[in-house]
Amino acid sequence: MTSTTMVEVSVTDVLAGRAAALRFEDLSPAALTVAKQCLLDWLGVSIAGSDEPLVRILLEERTDAGLAGVSAVVGRMERLALPAAVLVNGAMSHALDYDDVHKAMRGHPTVPVAPVALGLGAHLRASGRDVLTAFVAGFETECRVGALCGHDHYARGFHPTATIGTFGAAAAAGRLLGLDSASMALALGIAGTQSAGLKSAFGTHCKALHAGHAAEAGLLAARLAVRGFTANADILGDAQGFARTQSSGFDHVAAEADPPGGFHVTRTMFKYHAACFLTHSSIEALKAVRDQYGITPADVHEVELHVQAGHLKICGIAQPKTGLEVKFSLRMMAALVLAGVDTSNDKTYTDELATRSDLVALRDKVVVVPDWGGEGSAAEVVLTLAGGQRYAMQFDVGVPMQDLERQWTLLEAKFRSLVAPRLGEARTVKLVAACRAAEQLVDVAVLLELTTPIA
Amino acid sequence: MTSTTMVEVSVTDVLAGRAAALRFEDLSPAALTVAKQCLLDWLGVSIAGSDEPLVRILLEERTDAGLAGVSAVVGRMERLALPAAVLVNGAMSHALDYDDVHKAMRGHPTVPVAPVALGLGAHLRASGRDVLTAFVAGFETECRVGALCGHDHYARGFHPTATIGTFGAAAAAGRLLGLDSASMALALGIAGTQSAGLKSAFGTHCKALHAGHAAEAGLLAARLAVRGFTANADILGDAQGFARTQSSGFDHVAAEADPPGGFHVTRTMFKYHAACFLTHSSIEALKAVRDQYGITPADVHEVELHVQAGHLKICGIAQPKTGLEVKFSLRMMAALVLAGVDTSNDKTYTDELATRSDLVALRDKVVVVPDWGGEGSAAEVVLTLAGGQRYAMQFDVGVPMQDLERQWTLLEAKFRSLVAPRLGEARTVKLVAACRAAEQLVDVAVLLELTTPIA
Repeated sequence: MTSTTMVEVSVTDVLAGRAAALRFEDLSPAALTVAKQCLLDWLGVSIAGSDEPLVRILLEERTDAGLAGVSAVVGRMERLALPAAVLVNGAMSHALDYDDVHKAMRGHPTVPVAPVALGLGAHLRASGRDVLTAFVAGFETECRVGALCGHDHYARGFHPTATIGTFGAAAAAGRLLGLDSASMALALGIAGTQSAGLKSAFGTHCKALHAGHAAEAGLLAARLAVRGFTANADILGDAQGFARTQSSGFDHVAAEADPPGGFHVTRTMFKYHAACFLTHSSIEALKAVRDQYGITPADVHEVELHVQAGHLKICGIAQPKTGLEVKFSLRMMAALVLAGVDTSNDKTYTDELATRSDLVALRDKVVVVPDWGGEGSAAEVVLTLAGGQRYAMQFDVGVPMQDLERQWTLLEAKFRSLVAPRLGEARTVKLVAACRAAEQLVDVAVLLELTTPIA
Repeated sequence: MTSTTMVEVSVTDVLAGRAAALRFEDLSPAALTVAKQCLLDWLGVSIAGSDEPLVRILLEERTDAGLAGVSAVVGRMERLALPAAVLVNGAMSHALDYDDVHKAMRGHPTVPVAPVALGLGAHLRASGRDVLTAFVAGFETECRVGALCGHDHYARGFHPTATIGTFGAAAAAGRLLGLDSASMALALGIAGTQSAGLKSAFGTHCKALHAGHAAEAGLLAARLAVRGFTANADILGDAQGFARTQSSGFDHVAAEADPPGGFHVTRTMFKYHAACFLTHSSIEALKAVRDQYGITPADVHEVELHVQAGHLKICGIAQPKTGLEVKFSLRMMAALVLAGVDTSNDKTYTDELATRSDLVALRDKVVVVPDWGGEGSAAEVVLTLAGGQRYAMQFDVGVPMQDLERQWTLLEAKFRSLVAPRLGEARTVKLVAACRAAEQLVDVAVLLELTTPIA
């Protein structure tokens, strides 16, 4: 006779167990590559955002509050105590809204996690291998929590980058601190009861603050858990836990299931244009036609952009007057592509650009047709040349890129465009090389230090 | 002809405007008195909680994170940077769950607000008048937000001390910083998108952390708002703002209405026994009978405690074995009252006490009768003496005390019981005197400094 003891394993146990157990050797080649790409892109958008007004306000407030310290602030000379550096770095990396996105999480996966993985990693003088492992542990955890909560969490008004990102930050910190499965569950418990962030803050500095707040709260959670702070051990599954108080969805099967290839991180989507994400599929389709057929502005008779009708409410500005409005103008973004303007650089979008006569002339050849019935993230472009030829092209930026070498090429070009004007060519090359070989770093602190401007 | 412009005033505008405009001269005598009582009681329960394990963990973590500084930590030698001191002081003050409560807020009103009013006040070297004004501004704001959200917020699983307390902390900090009405609304916006805390964390260290987190987040909100950080200006009324994402209640009339006497703070309820709040009405009724008739243990034949049936699930432990269990045992608490044991001192509740033979003998004469049909917070005691006399008494600790001089007497006795063994008689007397005349303090920093143990 055998006796069997049934032990109920909660969804928090499953996610905590996976995050705690993840080893560098477990990472698939694709997961490792995309994780490094996430870090490179995160550094680039952070450096680009490092002088935004909201960053300057946060730096001034934290310094005045007595939080100067030794932890690096990306792209800046200032040094802050670790929790403050994590807050500011998280906020700056989301300041331009130019960071990566993920469908499972329904938000921006890297901005709450990378500040903790790199910041705590530098604090601990951890290796590149350990930081990459922690980063993926955090990333996978937040995507799984996103799958658990489903769409209703976002629909109700919560901002997953903030709320769900807190779990990712806690898991990354917990992995770096070597939490076992039980302590990791408590770290998630401490994280979940601090988790906050509302979509109604969009359009204000608070949207960026969300990423920083998530990172800082997650860091605190793991640092308290390792010291024996007690918490609800099943914050995800509890009848009044995080998921059930803030979503009507509760799909623990989706949360616990492995995605294709084993890692959510391989399905990260990067942004390559410093404009509204809903313009990106039109841009990519038009670029593909332009490059395939070597089309110059003089060749163009008309451009049709077929997009989902709802997009016009968001990026339908027909005649933009400012640089900011250009980012929300499908017509003007198409004109920039035809004229070969660098759409990846946030500095491109000046007020002068909005009214440059050659661009306005091109813009006036662009017709937005709100009849697209395919995937909401996709678009079709139909280009008619002066000679009468017509070329059609569809693109969907909502499909993660499979060709990771091409993804490196695109991400490096974006990084160079954002970073070289700020830190110079030599630093740009060093940072790219360091991220490309991040698993060989003995002390990950070098990554953040390399972003410090030369005095 | 006249032209009229209708300006819609949001509920956030109303609450922010009131908090920003409150002057010391506006405080009623009762509001001023109870505010000072809140501060005295807050200092007492904080000092009593200052060596709890959760406080030691937080102190260690914050210090290791580089957050040492110059702001006082109540009852301790350590000094921290302002945000860290506010976090730790908030958490320690809720560590024993012995702090005040309020029906409008449906939580603990002082623990998220006092750490900010006193901590930021000390940082700014503000006067007692300014700190009391800021404290009341924060207190009224959180009670009004509580009235706005109604019972459903709590029922859904949120802990108002944490969530709604964040608004109180922001308003108190904003008042001290002199925010105008518009900036105060933004401070509430920054607060509301950081607001978090789940009831499912009850029974763990996180419940106390909630008060500290609320205090720290509210402080940050006001300090960012004064520097021009942008936020949703109607976080309370927005269709996907704080109230509507986290409650089905939305009673802006209740939120905007003045309570009787003009101030919610006058309806604060204090705890006088370091045991489960649901035992307090039975304790007070039994004390009243005991004192009125001079009853000694030898006189007692039987005690009936008539309480609401639901209370037995919470404080119905019939034969407690530990000091902690005594706090959740109506029978044993009645025995302590009959024996004249000090129920106000948290140190009373030892494991030895639980099994002391004279107390067990008294406990065995107590019968809990779950038939009470009146107010849930009330109870009736029926005492039968050996000689056959029967005395009945009802009490309801859910009714705020009207006699504020008697309230001073009771609060001072509680304070003395908690503080004298820790800081000595001289300090105890000084702290009581300083709180009693807090509006005369030139620099409020003295209040926190007086809690530092003599080296």
